[in-house]
Amino acid sequence: MYGLIGKITATSGQRDALIAILVAGSDALPGCYSYIVAADAVDQDIIWVTEVWDSETSHKASLLIASVKQAIMKGRPLIAGMERVATTAPLISHTKY
Amino acid sequence: MYGLIGKITATSGQRDALIAILVAGSDALPGCYSYIVAADAVDQDIIWVTEVWDSETSHKASLLIASVKQAIMKGRPLIAGMERVATTAPLISHTKY
Repeated sequence: MYGLIGKITATSGQRDALIAILVAGSDALPGCYSYIVAADAVDQDIIWVTEVWDSETSHKASLLIASVKQAIMKGRPLIAGMERVATTAPLISHTKY
Repeated sequence: MYGLIGKITATSGQRDALIAILVAGSDALPGCYSYIVAADAVDQDIIWVTEVWDSETSHKASLLIASVKQAIMKGRPLIAGMERVATTAPLISHTKY
């Protein structure tokens, strides 16, 4: 499996709007086991996105999906910075919802 | 919801053994929506643990569970370092497995 941990800095005051865009754009992602968008509890501008995919190929393919491309375009003006904190090989222990 | 992103440094050559302990200890965690253990793709000693809980209370309570206490005790000698990278408020978009 293929995992990503990303840290996004929203432009000031735009985190909620950006989170909404990220969540909306992640609805149907073939090969995606987990896509979690989370607000940092301390820094009001930081968003964490943690993802688990069946493969890097599926992740790359997702970037060509219309809803994802739309979300990236809509979200870009609200992004002040992006950092890929880690690329990982997940061993999922459990998830339930 | 309550989320954590943690970075664990295993003692040299012990990452796989430590991952096995972490995964085994995370089997039945009331209130835990997601507990993902992942090996860093670049640094051979780094493990990422990303968690989503229904509340901070559930997370704290989990530390009193016998299987978790056992895992912490078993894992401690194999841990060279631990860092809480972020505490978060997750807005889960999706997970499926």
